[in-house]
Amino acid sequence: MDYSKNFYQIKSNEEIFYKVSLEKNTVGYYDLPFQDTSEFKEYAKTVTQQDIVVVGIGGSSLGTYAIHKFLQHKENMKKLHFLESTDPLDLERRISKLDLNDTLFIIISKSGTTIETVSILKYLSSITMLDKSNTICITESDSKLNTYAKTNDMKTFEIPKNVGGRFSVFTAVGLVTMAIMGLDIDRILFGCQTIYNDYFNRGDYYTSIMEKARFIVENKNRFNINVVFSYSSLLEGFNKWYVQLWGESLGKININQTKQALTPIALTGPVDQHSFLQLIMEGKRDKTITFIKVADFENELTIPDVSLPGLEELDYINNIKFKNLINEQADATIEAIQNLKDIPCDIITIEAQDEYNIGKLMYSYELLTSIVGSFVQINTYDQPGVEAGKIILKDKLKKKI
Amino acid sequence: MDYSKNFYQIKSNEEIFYKVSLEKNTVGYYDLPFQDTSEFKEYAKTVTQQDIVVVGIGGSSLGTYAIHKFLQHKENMKKLHFLESTDPLDLERRISKLDLNDTLFIIISKSGTTIETVSILKYLSSITMLDKSNTICITESDSKLNTYAKTNDMKTFEIPKNVGGRFSVFTAVGLVTMAIMGLDIDRILFGCQTIYNDYFNRGDYYTSIMEKARFIVENKNRFNINVVFSYSSLLEGFNKWYVQLWGESLGKININQTKQALTPIALTGPVDQHSFLQLIMEGKRDKTITFIKVADFENELTIPDVSLPGLEELDYINNIKFKNLINEQADATIEAIQNLKDIPCDIITIEAQDEYNIGKLMYSYELLTSIVGSFVQINTYDQPGVEAGKIILKDKLKKKI
Repeated sequence: MDYSKNFYQIKSNEEIFYKVSLEKNTVGYYDLPFQDTSEFKEYAKTVTQQDIVVVGIGGSSLGTYAIHKFLQHKENMKKLHFLESTDPLDLERRISKLDLNDTLFIIISKSGTTIETVSILKYLSSITMLDKSNTICITESDSKLNTYAKTNDMKTFEIPKNVGGRFSVFTAVGLVTMAIMGLDIDRILFGCQTIYNDYFNRGDYYTSIMEKARFIVENKNRFNINVVFSYSSLLEGFNKWYVQLWGESLGKININQTKQALTPIALTGPVDQHSFLQLIMEGKRDKTITFIKVADFENELTIPDVSLPGLEELDYINNIKFKNLINEQADATIEAIQNLKDIPCDIITIEAQDEYNIGKLMYSYELLTSIVGSFVQINTYDQPGVEAGKIILKDKLKKKI
Repeated sequence: MDYSKNFYQIKSNEEIFYKVSLEKNTVGYYDLPFQDTSEFKEYAKTVTQQDIVVVGIGGSSLGTYAIHKFLQHKENMKKLHFLESTDPLDLERRISKLDLNDTLFIIISKSGTTIETVSILKYLSSITMLDKSNTICITESDSKLNTYAKTNDMKTFEIPKNVGGRFSVFTAVGLVTMAIMGLDIDRILFGCQTIYNDYFNRGDYYTSIMEKARFIVENKNRFNINVVFSYSSLLEGFNKWYVQLWGESLGKININQTKQALTPIALTGPVDQHSFLQLIMEGKRDKTITFIKVADFENELTIPDVSLPGLEELDYINNIKFKNLINEQADATIEAIQNLKDIPCDIITIEAQDEYNIGKLMYSYELLTSIVGSFVQINTYDQPGVEAGKIILKDKLKKKI
């Protein structure tokens, strides 16, 4: 066996900390928490439409969807819609819900030539007049979508070149829409700052994120599936965003030409107790589990003190608040898993359902992804594996002309 | 090494065919395609309400959701809702959409004492009068929910004892709601019959299902993740149903006390090309991929012949129907994966979006699950692993009284 200086060995925490710190010079997402958001907020104030439509796919929509889903109850009365898939029935159904005379279209594509997004843009332009009064574009400064916007005198916001799509939620990609929906985007960024400052000053988050990343990497051949089990339907958007962030960032060939294997799975409790939990409990030990709980749902909905004939044996749930029930369900599942003693498991508790806390959660997951990527010696920020299909598609479609 | 007569060896197709045929004597789902549905259809005609609410979780709702999502465009004008989670914000938001004076509640629980379902039932009973005019129950004949229904003179439908929740979509659990929504439930069952007859007469489906099951089992240690990649948003419900069916049926300790490992993942195209595809292409070869395509979407939505300034290079997509675009996207992704030559991959094509075809698809997946379960020598139909958490929860809640 020849010696290779890249021969895989897990680096020390010190080396990884240093490597990730250096990345700040070239990878744009790290410093986003400290940006000036006044342009987004000023623009948001001018929006009068009631239907807000994000036209974008993958990194252009998932982060916004995650925050929206989590904070929906705090948003203003505007309605947020997503046009993403080329599925014609899905597309038609979603468009039918819009009042086209009272809609703002936010066209988002980093490259500016995403085929799904441009297809939908073309279709929209045939059913309504798209102009500067109802359309804005969020894209790279020199993209073809930017040319389209400038030609039509439409407002544009820039996606920095050094921020990848799946790390772009804290650029204009997410923040413009969130500001329009009435959320406090500075509080979102303040949540990110908290994590940033703590991590780079080596506080408690540094310790816990580094420890988690190291565990995942050291055991990646044994536990190659990383499950996030969120005990709230409000985290369904976060779940999808996590799957993209993890899968597309870490599913790579590393510096030694080794295919990496960490596979994300996202579950929602208590529903998936009735679906996936059996496999966790009795299946092969190939999964780590991260439970995410919401400490307080700010909702007092309570199971009433009602005894139903025949179902009296369930009277012990009377007078329990649903928010406590769901958390007890989470705790019971966690305890059952911990009792097995051979399934790695950690718990993240979100203190409140607000902008600050979703910013914290998402930024800490971005950092965790970067650190794991650094440990396994890959480029965390590209996605070369999806190009082959795009080239084949283009050839297929061009042959049809 | 001592000899054990159960020492794991993959049985012959003949042995498995025989074993599965024997199961028909004790496992109830096999013969469901041939049941008499007149009671469901007669009842459905009497329903006058416009909001139809399924109260149930896991196997009590996922199958209905799968069919509904796939055939939504064929249903009558009634609106179908699902109350499933104990998440209070989610629950409140869903209930707020109902016209309580024009709602039919369908309470579904096989055991009759599912804690989520009874919690929601209790809550509903405190905000509206539940009686025989607006509530029916679907449960086992001797359950406590059945007692509740009888005491209140409510209509009930029975879930046979020998049909497990995740195999119950073709009992009253799925069929009553589908009949109310105006779907042709006999055509659904006819789709199931087609698969049944072909399989048990050893036709083409027998060959392909058996071959697929054998491949999965023979390679289960190498390819332990089974991805379904559905190219239509209409299959998102099917995807969730598949994850439950596969995970909860096959995530078991087998006859030799070996923890089985097959893990389901469900993706939707083209959206997940922008999320999970990178990991499939460049990650470790631990996944099989089954693509599901819809041959004809019965929709003519077309990308218009519009040239957008700046985006002229994408004019090659003009005049393409969206239904063709999404299928070309599927084909391009399939080709890119097949070119790699080391990712096991098969394709299921659904001929049309109708009752017959969703019946075929779902029944064939039930059969496939049974066959794989038989190969790996587990009990496919129980779920002992979820009991521990339930007991802990009950203890926690009872202590609070």
